[in-house]
Amino acid sequence: MENKYLEELGKNAVAASRILSKMGTNPKNEGLKTVAEYLVKYQAEILEANRKDIDKAKENGMKESLVDRLTLTEDRIKGMAVGLEKLVALDDPIGEVVNMKKTPNDLKIGRKRVPLGVVGIIYEARPNVTADAFGLCFKTGNAVILKGGSDAIHSNTKIVEIIRKALEHTGAPVDAVALIESTDRETTKEFMTMREYVDVLIPRGSAGLIKATVENSKIPVIETGTGNCHVFVDESADIEMAAKIIENAKTQRIGVCNACESLVIHEKIIDKALPVIVDVLKKHNVEIRGDEKACSISGDIIPATEEDWGTEYLDYIISVKTVPDFDSAIQHINRYNTKHSESIITNNYNNSQRFLDEIDAAAVYVNASTRFTDGFEFGFGAEIGISTQKLHARGPMGLEALTTTKFIILGNGQIRN
Amino acid sequence: MENKYLEELGKNAVAASRILSKMGTNPKNEGLKTVAEYLVKYQAEILEANRKDIDKAKENGMKESLVDRLTLTEDRIKGMAVGLEKLVALDDPIGEVVNMKKTPNDLKIGRKRVPLGVVGIIYEARPNVTADAFGLCFKTGNAVILKGGSDAIHSNTKIVEIIRKALEHTGAPVDAVALIESTDRETTKEFMTMREYVDVLIPRGSAGLIKATVENSKIPVIETGTGNCHVFVDESADIEMAAKIIENAKTQRIGVCNACESLVIHEKIIDKALPVIVDVLKKHNVEIRGDEKACSISGDIIPATEEDWGTEYLDYIISVKTVPDFDSAIQHINRYNTKHSESIITNNYNNSQRFLDEIDAAAVYVNASTRFTDGFEFGFGAEIGISTQKLHARGPMGLEALTTTKFIILGNGQIRN
Repeated sequence: MENKYLEELGKNAVAASRILSKMGTNPKNEGLKTVAEYLVKYQAEILEANRKDIDKAKENGMKESLVDRLTLTEDRIKGMAVGLEKLVALDDPIGEVVNMKKTPNDLKIGRKRVPLGVVGIIYEARPNVTADAFGLCFKTGNAVILKGGSDAIHSNTKIVEIIRKALEHTGAPVDAVALIESTDRETTKEFMTMREYVDVLIPRGSAGLIKATVENSKIPVIETGTGNCHVFVDESADIEMAAKIIENAKTQRIGVCNACESLVIHEKIIDKALPVIVDVLKKHNVEIRGDEKACSISGDIIPATEEDWGTEYLDYIISVKTVPDFDSAIQHINRYNTKHSESIITNNYNNSQRFLDEIDAAAVYVNASTRFTDGFEFGFGAEIGISTQKLHARGPMGLEALTTTKFIILGNGQIRN
Repeated sequence: MENKYLEELGKNAVAASRILSKMGTNPKNEGLKTVAEYLVKYQAEILEANRKDIDKAKENGMKESLVDRLTLTEDRIKGMAVGLEKLVALDDPIGEVVNMKKTPNDLKIGRKRVPLGVVGIIYEARPNVTADAFGLCFKTGNAVILKGGSDAIHSNTKIVEIIRKALEHTGAPVDAVALIESTDRETTKEFMTMREYVDVLIPRGSAGLIKATVENSKIPVIETGTGNCHVFVDESADIEMAAKIIENAKTQRIGVCNACESLVIHEKIIDKALPVIVDVLKKHNVEIRGDEKACSISGDIIPATEEDWGTEYLDYIISVKTVPDFDSAIQHINRYNTKHSESIITNNYNNSQRFLDEIDAAAVYVNASTRFTDGFEFGFGAEIGISTQKLHARGPMGLEALTTTKFIILGNGQIRN
């Protein structure tokens, strides 16, 4: 490699990953606990570093909401520590052996769960991701190389320094975590070519960041993505249930990838259902953009354009598409969705099964809110992101997504004929 | 996309994949049987097309061994048909639901196994891969776009034509398989950027082909790789067993990725073990290249260079590395291996466990030949290749490697708090 700094980081991470892969669960948990303690113990230093980032952000005229995401407080640092402590309680997936079977020639063949090795994470503003990503990787025996945003560079540098200090104290390899201290584009691009040292790259952040990573990376990427999620109100839907679910999926939290952005409605139920749904959404001041048929039902609906069907608003806006039949609903959703989360509200058995089979998405629901697509809600106890790609991991990713398996084969002298 | 021809192929493949994903197991099996019949029924046409490829290859002075790989015969076509019939007997992985659990709020959440969608396969000379790859993808409900080598273009075009004719006859979508008819570099490069239409790209062939795919593809790649496989003879090894396993792993078949290329031997057993092993290898005229210590034991060993430790010979050549202890063996192997298949010959319980834990490879053996790394030997009944990467699939890939899962969530009105 031309960039000696990155090469050094890579080599150190690989060396640390070898040690981490052999570490037992107890020492890994000790490491997590100590890091949690150190973050609180040294919070004054973290807050001071964070202050520098905030001052610079304000100088540069950063939007208030973004400054808020960048800001650390004692409570937020405590939150980072609690997050690490929660990982201690989770089962360690490493070392599990599954599907151990015997072949006709008496070889025993099974799959052993092992770390991926070195994980690269590219992220943007929020400095709490630094501790979070370290924790998930450490629990699963992976070394991690972090590339944060330039806005949070002082905070991230300090947090990583404290994590490494804590690791040194417990005797764990300090290179279990490293931060790329240069945040320019060239370094980031070169980081994405480090196949020799990095086993997987996970971008966390805006659609632009994810796109740039997917397009430039030579390292395998786990794509975490945007969510243009639909709720389809089928002909046989329970209208009250549909209204409650749409209210929840659209308004319980705005700006998240599993929020509902589009309502698809069967034309045989639209006269009865849509007014009820519009009433509920209007209570939350949701702007409703519909097709011609939808507009004809309610004066509260403004005309949608073609662009609306493909838009993830992340705002108090929803689109409404009328469909003449079940097949058209499937086609519309598969055409415009981002393969994230889709829900049908129905009492028709056959349609529920067809929806589950035919909708192409990471999470497909019957009679429930799309907002449940989340590692914690799914019972994983942790989440590194939500994958919208099909390879390796799909949907919410818990600890297991940071592992792979290797075949282990136990013989007593077998040779192949 | 600029290339309208490829865009059309991509769109048709996606449309076919939607239909395939809904097809039941019986119609898929009918399709496979009919294709098998048609390949035999139209073998005269296939042989005629193959003749053109062979004539051109000879004109261009192709090596005899490569011409042989390119050549189809009635027997080989029969072999292609039998391969498809064997897929009929295998369990269809699509539709299986695993880990269906109930959450505290009574959502039922499980994972349903579904096709990947559209698979791209880039391969080189052997035209039988055409039918083989189609069969694996079709059984798993995937459409496949094939990009074969220019040497086999007439054979591949004809085989795909006949497969499509058979599919049409059974009512299956003909675009379940398509061949990219242009074999120039530009088209191949553009094919690798078709993320919108192709879900995964699998290169099958030389190290150069695989490297080019990994480096240029914007589509997620499953890397199938080379094998610099080691057998480590530990201090406590059964010497007769070691000699038999090394003989098998080195000589049972030359030129395959799971053959042994390097012998690593503990210096405490070298005096007794190496002469026995050398005797066995010399019967097969294997050239043995060793380090200083190895050369001092046997006059049949010639000096190895640094380059030897990293070389996959695919020939009657083996390297011998002496190590002073177990740790050095682990280090040497992890440094030079290609993460394929590694074996230890030992009677030491602790060392057997450490080898399984610490060697970074797709398949790790105790007291058995590395030659077993193979989808058929592992009991999968089929093989699309052997993955040496860690994401999605690692080691021999059977039908399941061509699938993904989606979460299905069954509710009765649940909303998120």
